[in-house]
Amino acid sequence: MPIRAVFFDHQLQVVQCAYPTPGEGEALIRLRVGGICNTDLELMQGYKRFSGPLGHEFVGEVIAGPEEWLGRRVVGEINIHCGQCDLCQRGIFTQCRQRRVLGIMNYDGAFADVFRLPVQNLHLVPESLADEEAVFTEPLAAACQVVEAVHIQPTDRVVLLGAGKLGLLAAQVLRLTGADLSVIVRRERQKSLLAMWGIHAVGREDMSDASADVVVDCTGRAEGFADALDLIRPRGTLVLKSTYAGIPQADLTRLVVNEIRVVGSRCGPFGAALRLLEQRLVDVRSMIDAEYSLDEAVSAFERASEPGVLKVLLRL
Amino acid sequence: MPIRAVFFDHQLQVVQCAYPTPGEGEALIRLRVGGICNTDLELMQGYKRFSGPLGHEFVGEVIAGPEEWLGRRVVGEINIHCGQCDLCQRGIFTQCRQRRVLGIMNYDGAFADVFRLPVQNLHLVPESLADEEAVFTEPLAAACQVVEAVHIQPTDRVVLLGAGKLGLLAAQVLRLTGADLSVIVRRERQKSLLAMWGIHAVGREDMSDASADVVVDCTGRAEGFADALDLIRPRGTLVLKSTYAGIPQADLTRLVVNEIRVVGSRCGPFGAALRLLEQRLVDVRSMIDAEYSLDEAVSAFERASEPGVLKVLLRL
Repeated sequence: MPIRAVFFDHQLQVVQCAYPTPGEGEALIRLRVGGICNTDLELMQGYKRFSGPLGHEFVGEVIAGPEEWLGRRVVGEINIHCGQCDLCQRGIFTQCRQRRVLGIMNYDGAFADVFRLPVQNLHLVPESLADEEAVFTEPLAAACQVVEAVHIQPTDRVVLLGAGKLGLLAAQVLRLTGADLSVIVRRERQKSLLAMWGIHAVGREDMSDASADVVVDCTGRAEGFADALDLIRPRGTLVLKSTYAGIPQADLTRLVVNEIRVVGSRCGPFGAALRLLEQRLVDVRSMIDAEYSLDEAVSAFERASEPGVLKVLLRL
Repeated sequence: MPIRAVFFDHQLQVVQCAYPTPGEGEALIRLRVGGICNTDLELMQGYKRFSGPLGHEFVGEVIAGPEEWLGRRVVGEINIHCGQCDLCQRGIFTQCRQRRVLGIMNYDGAFADVFRLPVQNLHLVPESLADEEAVFTEPLAAACQVVEAVHIQPTDRVVLLGAGKLGLLAAQVLRLTGADLSVIVRRERQKSLLAMWGIHAVGREDMSDASADVVVDCTGRAEGFADALDLIRPRGTLVLKSTYAGIPQADLTRLVVNEIRVVGSRCGPFGAALRLLEQRLVDVRSMIDAEYSLDEAVSAFERASEPGVLKVLLRL
């Protein structure tokens, strides 16, 4: 019995694939809702030279695996780790040296009728969360990684650059620290979302240079990093939250002279993300711009690629 | 009564200057010994567009100022701070927003018969230290800033790149942490110094990629930073200890994906440097390659510019 999968190999297609066979420790999951991430769009531009079924943001239902998981609604961590290497031994599973990554690196993605994932990667979705909320767990966890990696103090002046899908989630998480947060934004849609959340939206020209204690760069663009370097105060902390297209130039001498700390940040804690969603401390519904069926995945990806479009969901 | 000064303005000359007049809170200091730093050489390449008397590593004798300082042998912190700005208020005097820097930025340097410095910048030199030892206080303080800025744990694998003047001091400070330290080095002179200090000298080819917990880059070169990025493990810390000539490219995506921390580091704690010198925990004498008189400063700078040459001193 074949399944459908959103397959990328130089081009994107919905194709028929063989029904997946779970390996040792793996569950089979039927997709309920998937979310398209900027990383998916970058993979289609050649990032990681990926080919295969895409997708790493999902809510699904376990249809094969340990009995206690059967029929349960789940989200899942995307790094498949070995448990043996030095980094796994330190508990840094997301950086496992032999890691495979769901729909990103050496592991088939979740945009398919049915897909595999290790049981140890699964998290139960609380009853109170709808599918279209729970599907934000993975990117919200990545947003939480900012405050996991850096101690944001309530007295800090924080500036966030790049109010895209991830940036808006990071802004909402940063709002919860009590810090003096400003988000640099141009698009009206993003401005009104931020206003709704009570977050200070500003233009670049409103912010004085060398004034921010912490700058979070979610732009993924070299110009964003350059702005971040202008905004950060001496001894401040600059958090890089997005992968950068190409290799942007960074003025390392300024990092030395101004004693800046730069912290890279990637996948984050699912438990914290689920708690924030369940406690309604983060609003994700307002960030949904469109829903498509799995068969319409190519159109969904086209829509997701349009400038300024926020979350596009795929529903089985 | 004019004084001699080592003056840079497009070219380096020993010139006659007016006797300096101390301002409010400033002492007058007669130079005893000065040390030539790589920053001095970079200023001559156009860094900071400096022109004026050079020199910021010195030991001198106070000849005018508060009575308790008169006749005392001193070293001095190089950042002249305002005490008023937000960073001074936080105690981060070395990053003062209005700072001037001895022999580097808007403040006449120490390579002169007599020069000025605020009394609050002075540190008494212990009797047990010779001039040619105490003159290393400023660069050794900068080396100490590595362990001030980053918690090096005794279980860490630390790699240092760039075994020049500053790198060799940083290596000696890092040795004191008990960490597993390797210094990447090519020159025989540096190798034998490291061997004498019991520090593990290696070639780049001896080190495996992605294995170091902490990498300290003292190269000031883009290739050094690239090597550092190869050597650091995921979630590791990369300390930038030198200003970089030009603007080297840094692959920011690797910082994000591997969640690297980059910490810029500049001037450091004089008190700690003096303690390490006094307790003979750091060997600076072996790093002296030549001494010249102030009149021979042009030759001294030429010598200091030769590849692989370590510390060149100027003696009044």
